Amino acid sequence: MKNFTLLVLITVMFMSCEPVKTKDMISGKFAHSVLIWLNNPNSEADRQKIEKGLKELIENSDYIRSAHLGVPALTARDVVDNSYTYHLMVTFGSKEEQDKYQVEPAHKKFLADCKNLWNKVLIYDSMNVLEEGENLK
Amino acid sequence: MKNFTLLVLITVMFMSCEPVKTKDMISGKFAHSVLIWLNNPNSEADRQKIEKGLKELIENSDYIRSAHLGVPALTARDVVDNSYTYHLMVTFGSKEEQDKYQVEPAHKKFLADCKNLWNKVLIYDSMNVLEEGENLK
Repeated sequence: MKNFTLLVLITVMFMSCEPVKTKDMISGKFAHSVLIWLNNPNSEADRQKIEKGLKELIENSDYIRSAHLGVPALTARDVVDNSYTYHLMVTFGSKEEQDKYQVEPAHKKFLADCKNLWNKVLIYDSMNVLEEGENLK
Repeated sequence: MKNFTLLVLITVMFMSCEPVKTKDMISGKFAHSVLIWLNNPNSEADRQKIEKGLKELIENSDYIRSAHLGVPALTARDVVDNSYTYHLMVTFGSKEEQDKYQVEPAHKKFLADCKNLWNKVLIYDSMNVLEEGENLK
């Protein structure tokens, strides 16, 4: 019996040593990826204003599921564009929810407060083709 | 005592009726956003091949934290680019982990198997400036 307990213990230890890959599908089938180029990317005041606006937008939106607000990682490769100032990636449960986000008060307020800060916006909207759980172990 | 229990029950019921917004920060501080333009975006064989390759890459990578594999959502706005074929967005825990992903076997295999399928790739790498929990309620 003692030996059996020892065997179980050793087995459990080995199992916990085995690397387990855990991945998430980014939640929300609809991804809204927004690249923003500020007029004055080196202005600390402008950066603070838009970061505050974007954080309030994420906080107050009724439709955003998940968010990433990024600045260029400055990876040095030919195919990488580091010229933008902010990358906002937000997800929604569906295309319809993204349509509602476009006209909700939180989004309108953000645009009214901050649209004078940028000179270019480029958007990639995409629908996830991964099934939840599929290939994500 | 009965009244107190009733009061607690009513309070709990009201609390659960209040709408609670739940948002996630997309996990992984480093977002690697890859737009891919296929040579033959209408070829079902090419699409199946690259989708299989991308799913295997996501499955087998030791470094990918979370993933979105999207196709154009066809939102009709001037600032939206719908010309790409796939948008792969994967996240990593750090810039160092993304560096390791670039040279890991799963990524090398994907490139060897599929790089002849596309004519253009555009990448946005960004570091999240949101603090976990901040503005994400």
